[in-house]
Amino acid sequence: MLPEEPLALGLKRSAIRELFEYGKKRKSEIGEDKVFDFSIGNPSIPAPECINTAIKELIETADPIVLHGYSSAQGDANVRKAIADYLNKTHGTSFNADNLYMTCGAAASLCITLRAILLKGQEVITFAPYFPEYKVFTEGQGGKLTVIPVDTDGFKLDFVKFEAAINENTKAVLINSPNNPSGVVYSENCIKKLAEIMNKKSAEYGHEIYLISDEPYRELVYDKDTFVPFVTKYYNNTIVCYSYSKSLSLPGERIGYILVPDEVKDSRNVYASVCGAGRVLGYVCAPTLFQQVVAKCVGKTGDISQYKKNRDLLYGGLTELGYDCVKPDGAFYLFVKAPEADANAFCEKAKKYELLLVAGDGFGCPGYVRISYCVATETIVNSMPAFKALMEEYK
Amino acid sequence: MLPEEPLALGLKRSAIRELFEYGKKRKSEIGEDKVFDFSIGNPSIPAPECINTAIKELIETADPIVLHGYSSAQGDANVRKAIADYLNKTHGTSFNADNLYMTCGAAASLCITLRAILLKGQEVITFAPYFPEYKVFTEGQGGKLTVIPVDTDGFKLDFVKFEAAINENTKAVLINSPNNPSGVVYSENCIKKLAEIMNKKSAEYGHEIYLISDEPYRELVYDKDTFVPFVTKYYNNTIVCYSYSKSLSLPGERIGYILVPDEVKDSRNVYASVCGAGRVLGYVCAPTLFQQVVAKCVGKTGDISQYKKNRDLLYGGLTELGYDCVKPDGAFYLFVKAPEADANAFCEKAKKYELLLVAGDGFGCPGYVRISYCVATETIVNSMPAFKALMEEYK
Repeated sequence: MLPEEPLALGLKRSAIRELFEYGKKRKSEIGEDKVFDFSIGNPSIPAPECINTAIKELIETADPIVLHGYSSAQGDANVRKAIADYLNKTHGTSFNADNLYMTCGAAASLCITLRAILLKGQEVITFAPYFPEYKVFTEGQGGKLTVIPVDTDGFKLDFVKFEAAINENTKAVLINSPNNPSGVVYSENCIKKLAEIMNKKSAEYGHEIYLISDEPYRELVYDKDTFVPFVTKYYNNTIVCYSYSKSLSLPGERIGYILVPDEVKDSRNVYASVCGAGRVLGYVCAPTLFQQVVAKCVGKTGDISQYKKNRDLLYGGLTELGYDCVKPDGAFYLFVKAPEADANAFCEKAKKYELLLVAGDGFGCPGYVRISYCVATETIVNSMPAFKALMEEYK
Repeated sequence: MLPEEPLALGLKRSAIRELFEYGKKRKSEIGEDKVFDFSIGNPSIPAPECINTAIKELIETADPIVLHGYSSAQGDANVRKAIADYLNKTHGTSFNADNLYMTCGAAASLCITLRAILLKGQEVITFAPYFPEYKVFTEGQGGKLTVIPVDTDGFKLDFVKFEAAINENTKAVLINSPNNPSGVVYSENCIKKLAEIMNKKSAEYGHEIYLISDEPYRELVYDKDTFVPFVTKYYNNTIVCYSYSKSLSLPGERIGYILVPDEVKDSRNVYASVCGAGRVLGYVCAPTLFQQVVAKCVGKTGDISQYKKNRDLLYGGLTELGYDCVKPDGAFYLFVKAPEADANAFCEKAKKYELLLVAGDGFGCPGYVRISYCVATETIVNSMPAFKALMEEYK
């Protein structure tokens, strides 16, 4: 007899992964260019040139025993210092190496953080629409995920429902901005309001409520006037979970970090608990070559102007065809209202036109679909007749 | 309030890691060559040349979007096929890609496997001496580790105590051969006897008892007549946890696999549960560059003749000085009887001579110390006067 949770999760893959695998199969059947695969958040722009340069330089000059050897469990001290320095320069903060813990990417960052803070059965609050694996990660670490329903009018946070949902069992609030799947960026006022409510409720219940800020899309914003507030400056008990997957187009290499600022109450204990949680989950250290590589490329990104181009093409094209969606400020997703109530039925119809879209149900937002525009620009251009034909069915 | 388990584990680091950090500090104080650091199992021979060649070739020729992009959660199918083919050629087995799940190293392999099979509170049996993190990994996944005391006369398995320890709550038996810390390799007869008892007990209790074979040292054996039985051929419900950390000198890169043979009862469900457990613990996919690298270097190892040389020098030198230990067949550890009952006190005395040794207590074997001989050969040569002076204290 096998445990229910992993077996069920293994037998029923994530809907996104399922569709991604279907796409691979379909492409091999009818050709790459005939399938419009908007399913997965796999960066479509290459890693910046500095990545290959750094890899070459490291394998040519570094002692392989050190380069490929274990680092300290929390990550190489010089790597952590380079990242802290960059954050301080960019955001006017004052972090040091000991505030950072290197991880195997955002999923590891989140699982380790949740394991580090959650007592059995404690609640984590998040806002719809949200990345579906949040539920898997939270429940996997013994917690319970509470979802605040979405206000689809602009996808802003519903603070009334949020405040009402916080209770004495609430240990953390998990946000993701720029948001997957809506592309919305939370404004400074939004973060301030969030902090105000959390401070009030922390005082009311007499314990810390952590704000976990999941930020893999931090750098992926496309308009000059889009400001992404650095959350640790607005709320003391903030833990940042970061990944280089999207900014450096390295999702397969599994490299990111957890940031525990000194402002967090009992910061050193929280950091220690992060280290302990890493051990419990089998994370010995983050991949060492890529620790050094990201330190050498700190502050760089791929050419994200291509995502802006894709966003503008797709948003413009789809709204012209009559689709209804919010213009995304960041990330690389368009969250579109399905022209019928059942988004899953809509996605099935879309498949007939070789359009692979992800139903919003898993994101806590039925009636919507996520379209990942981290694809080749010609995929967007070539998909337009398919989107048009699909819309015709509803006219 | 933070959860007890990760906080305690984070505040009190693993004794090995603690000593390793002490060694780094001490070296910076008195010089690299003055400290005889035998604390950690960090390979001391460089990765074979094929590793750098493979990395260069991949970054120069592969599409970076594919190379650094997500692979399937279970790992790239071609990589898994290459490993299956190699295993089949070497061991006469008949695995295919779908028997393999790529992981972020041995710790991840073990945690994922344990999470995949353990119901809350079920027991895992292991044999002293054992790698201390087994307890962390097992308890972290909701299980309980039961340790069969060691028979220090040759460090053979005590089958009488083993058979008596199995009960209806036993879900798995965890073995490690070549063994860390004793260096002992379990013989074919030993594995046959283990399988016989486990088959009998599985039948008696009417459920599977899995044999988890933790094999990071599989290739590290030094004498022609040392045969390492491939465990899946002796017991059907075997799950192999492998890592390339030691064989390819890549411990920092976190790359390994879990092997679930078709012979395992309900093999497809066990494999699915492994996939689900990976999701629960935040493992999205194993690092993709190194998936490709190990596939290109399959069957290769570093120049392990250096470990043999170190073993012979250290074993010869220490026994000549009057130290008592079993000659290790494999891995890169010597497990030495402390000349006083308290191995911790002995290790403290050793520190006065700048000898960093790990007490056996954490390995479930008080009165012994582990000496990692994955060091530069001159460290062994230069440490002999220190070992001699240390022994003088007991004469």
